[in-house]
Amino acid sequence: MIYRLTLAYDGTEFEGWQRQSRARTVQGVLEQALQRLSGGAEVRIAGAGRTDAGVHALGQVASFELERVWEPPQLLRALNGLLPEDVRALELRPAAPGFHARRSALGKHYRYTLDTAPVQCPLRRRYAAHVPGPLDVSAMRAAATAFVGRRDFAALQSSGGGVKTSVRSVTRCEARLEDAALIVEVEADGFLRKMVRSMVGGLVEAGRGARAVEELRGALLARDRRAWPAPAEARGLTLVAVRYPAPTG
Amino acid sequence: MIYRLTLAYDGTEFEGWQRQSRARTVQGVLEQALQRLSGGAEVRIAGAGRTDAGVHALGQVASFELERVWEPPQLLRALNGLLPEDVRALELRPAAPGFHARRSALGKHYRYTLDTAPVQCPLRRRYAAHVPGPLDVSAMRAAATAFVGRRDFAALQSSGGGVKTSVRSVTRCEARLEDAALIVEVEADGFLRKMVRSMVGGLVEAGRGARAVEELRGALLARDRRAWPAPAEARGLTLVAVRYPAPTG
Repeated sequence: MIYRLTLAYDGTEFEGWQRQSRARTVQGVLEQALQRLSGGAEVRIAGAGRTDAGVHALGQVASFELERVWEPPQLLRALNGLLPEDVRALELRPAAPGFHARRSALGKHYRYTLDTAPVQCPLRRRYAAHVPGPLDVSAMRAAATAFVGRRDFAALQSSGGGVKTSVRSVTRCEARLEDAALIVEVEADGFLRKMVRSMVGGLVEAGRGARAVEELRGALLARDRRAWPAPAEARGLTLVAVRYPAPTG
Repeated sequence: MIYRLTLAYDGTEFEGWQRQSRARTVQGVLEQALQRLSGGAEVRIAGAGRTDAGVHALGQVASFELERVWEPPQLLRALNGLLPEDVRALELRPAAPGFHARRSALGKHYRYTLDTAPVQCPLRRRYAAHVPGPLDVSAMRAAATAFVGRRDFAALQSSGGGVKTSVRSVTRCEARLEDAALIVEVEADGFLRKMVRSMVGGLVEAGRGARAVEELRGALLARDRRAWPAPAEARGLTLVAVRYPAPTG
């Protein structure tokens, strides 16, 4: 039986999603827990987004196959009983044959949080990057529009992604103020490595007045990685949700 | 010169405010940092609220005296350079002679956050207690009104407070829903040990339907500690602000 699992995690103490032999990763602790529940049989899971070290999730999705057929609420409880407190299984359901968390995904939603207070708030420090304001939000909004649409994001791509094309369709890139935080919401059909953090790196430069919106737009069009600002810190990034086709009946 | 310092901290990795010889406390790390800035001379600070282990602050206030006269922004920067990331100095100003963070305070504002989602959110776990809903918010609001006014809070007092009277004036006790969180705001002229957490313990019992509002009101009036529900967890509590007389000119 194939299962689809929705997960939340605090990425602070994980070396990212992807299993590594010597590091604590989200995939690693999940596979370990599922293996214990399967009487020691190896279980391999696929994650929709291979989040980097320090990146969080409110709605990561993973798929895996188990021989034993479980009642979903029972498996969910058993899993949370074995998992550490910084990763939680939120929802579990049987999936259609062939379902794969990454390959079946139609799109993802990421959120980036900037703490713009003069001094970093210790209660936000794990989940927000500290960029003391003031930031020019309207310049940031103008820069954000450059990302929306079907674009080649080669300028924003970190090396090591190993993907065939750097063209992606971004359907939403919005900046809003909330208390002493600036929040950026990004949705796309897919993301390159560090793409959201590179977007936010560019938006912050626009907000500080360090780069003109036209300059950023030019670097994007020129697919020029060296001209693009450095990616923002991992701690501000959260994978909010993954979108799949509606089940057909 | 007497200084008044506003502080924020993540209480998770502190054994509370008050200095202890062998434990990491907020007062301890602050005094250490100030002592370094004073060339080794001992500095004693007073905190407005002696928060317990695991309790957070967005606006704790401390007072201390230094022989050297500093420019406040310079002292603030030097202090943050020495402090660990989970405690931050937010604001510093010279205070009038005789100012004492605790004795001069007119009142305090605490906030308590409950995570009411079915599964605890790992991104809230440091700053919210997990109480899976549904909670009857209108019953909680009705119970909250019992606290407002000048009351004897002996039923809600933990031992070891060493105070002369358990009468306090509560000016605000409000419960509101925000996403999958229930937030309780409490303001009073002063608080007994674990008073807010005991209030929230009572409110949760009302919200669950485990205690009738009249039963709670009766236990409060009877000053009966044994009849009062257990205090809610420390991690949900934050000292938001401390109120002082307006400076006279």
